[in-house]
Amino acid sequence: MTGNEGKVTLVSAGPGDLDLLTLKAAKVLASADVVLLDDLVNPEIVTLAPQARVIRVGKRGGCRSTPQAFIERLMQRYARRGSHVVRVKGGDALLFGRAGEELAALRHAGVTVEIVNGVSSAFAAAAGLGVSLTHRDHCQGVIFVTAHLRDHSEPDWQALAATGMTLAIYMGMSRIESLCATLVGALPTATPAAVVQWAGSANERRVTGTLGTIAAHARAAGLGSPAIILVGNAIGEAASFAISPASFGVNSREAGVEHLRRRA
Amino acid sequence: MTGNEGKVTLVSAGPGDLDLLTLKAAKVLASADVVLLDDLVNPEIVTLAPQARVIRVGKRGGCRSTPQAFIERLMQRYARRGSHVVRVKGGDALLFGRAGEELAALRHAGVTVEIVNGVSSAFAAAAGLGVSLTHRDHCQGVIFVTAHLRDHSEPDWQALAATGMTLAIYMGMSRIESLCATLVGALPTATPAAVVQWAGSANERRVTGTLGTIAAHARAAGLGSPAIILVGNAIGEAASFAISPASFGVNSREAGVEHLRRRA
Repeated sequence: MTGNEGKVTLVSAGPGDLDLLTLKAAKVLASADVVLLDDLVNPEIVTLAPQARVIRVGKRGGCRSTPQAFIERLMQRYARRGSHVVRVKGGDALLFGRAGEELAALRHAGVTVEIVNGVSSAFAAAAGLGVSLTHRDHCQGVIFVTAHLRDHSEPDWQALAATGMTLAIYMGMSRIESLCATLVGALPTATPAAVVQWAGSANERRVTGTLGTIAAHARAAGLGSPAIILVGNAIGEAASFAISPASFGVNSREAGVEHLRRRA
Repeated sequence: MTGNEGKVTLVSAGPGDLDLLTLKAAKVLASADVVLLDDLVNPEIVTLAPQARVIRVGKRGGCRSTPQAFIERLMQRYARRGSHVVRVKGGDALLFGRAGEELAALRHAGVTVEIVNGVSSAFAAAAGLGVSLTHRDHCQGVIFVTAHLRDHSEPDWQALAATGMTLAIYMGMSRIESLCATLVGALPTATPAAVVQWAGSANERRVTGTLGTIAAHARAAGLGSPAIILVGNAIGEAASFAISPASFGVNSREAGVEHLRRRA
């Protein structure tokens, strides 16, 4: 691009599998001059922008802990030079991940910004389990909540549980034991639960159980971040519950082949 | 396909714009033998499956009120004949829309079923407004809830409001006045709110306001179903609030061009 026609596009990379990008995201990447990449994004996404300069700005990536203000200045600088800057974020850019702050900063700086949606990890987790997030026999909706709060406090788990909705908990693996223990105060111990690590990617691994067992099962299976924790009766419709109601299973998918490894 | 290799793929059509389909959805449609189409899906999606037999099964479509059991039998019949049946649902198939029942029926019948995720309308609505659903200055998450319950009861709006999360209300336009009035019992009247009709499609129209004004504004602008109602302080970050804090605006996008029509 030339002149002052620079802009920033926030592109949602989806949960990992490049096939889960939208057609629009692929088109935008193909027209990018500069790509800013978060660390949880599948690094192979850069193959869709072979002409672009790629800058990794992940919080735990190679340049560890790129300050948010620096990322925002970087986007503004390239856009002002007339570049089409594509800021790639995992999942859907508008769910967690500080898009709100970046949008505000860009808008404040007078930079044109567009947004391309994508598939958030909890949807991919549900797809891996073969279950609707909102089976109408069980609930009226789903709550997407982060366990990782700015002030290191906790969400009001009991208030969330009291709504009767499916809970899709992001960034909760470091405190899965305590959050499940708190939820047990408001939900039956037997409430179905699942953990899906790397949902929607080739490395996806899943564990199913109950609110009372899922933390131990996930630890035993070696699951850690990034993972989605799903809780609610709708999750009990997952195929793995039908296969193995009294035990639990670890599932993974690689190159489209499903392996089921059961444990007693 | 031949022999007994039939299967059903639940494909998420996203919010309308065909460019918001995933690459995977486009590939699956290209391999479909039979396509079952819901009524809220962009009918042009059939151009991605030119070889397929298309059956419209929308609840308010041409064949009005196709019974759910008939749809499920139809999918099973074609799959058993060896066809690749692609069941297309608007938004993400795993959020509302009875995917849970269809998955259970197919699983019970021993039919192989796969799921392809997509972009749900509330994400597209947020993108249209230029706002994160979960700006971390304002909330810890977002609740996706349907106002259209099976037993014609209402969700517990006050319990939902009490969580402090952004509310993304699906299928609420027929009762927007009453649900806003109920929410005002638990949230300040000045809480930012928006209605986005046909989010993520060429016909998208948006109205912004507050919990106290949004119902009247949406009616005055002639907005109806299908629409997403968004409520919460995170929604107040929308560009239209910055443009016009004291009034309200109706926005639409057609072919990528944004028109802003302001009212006093």
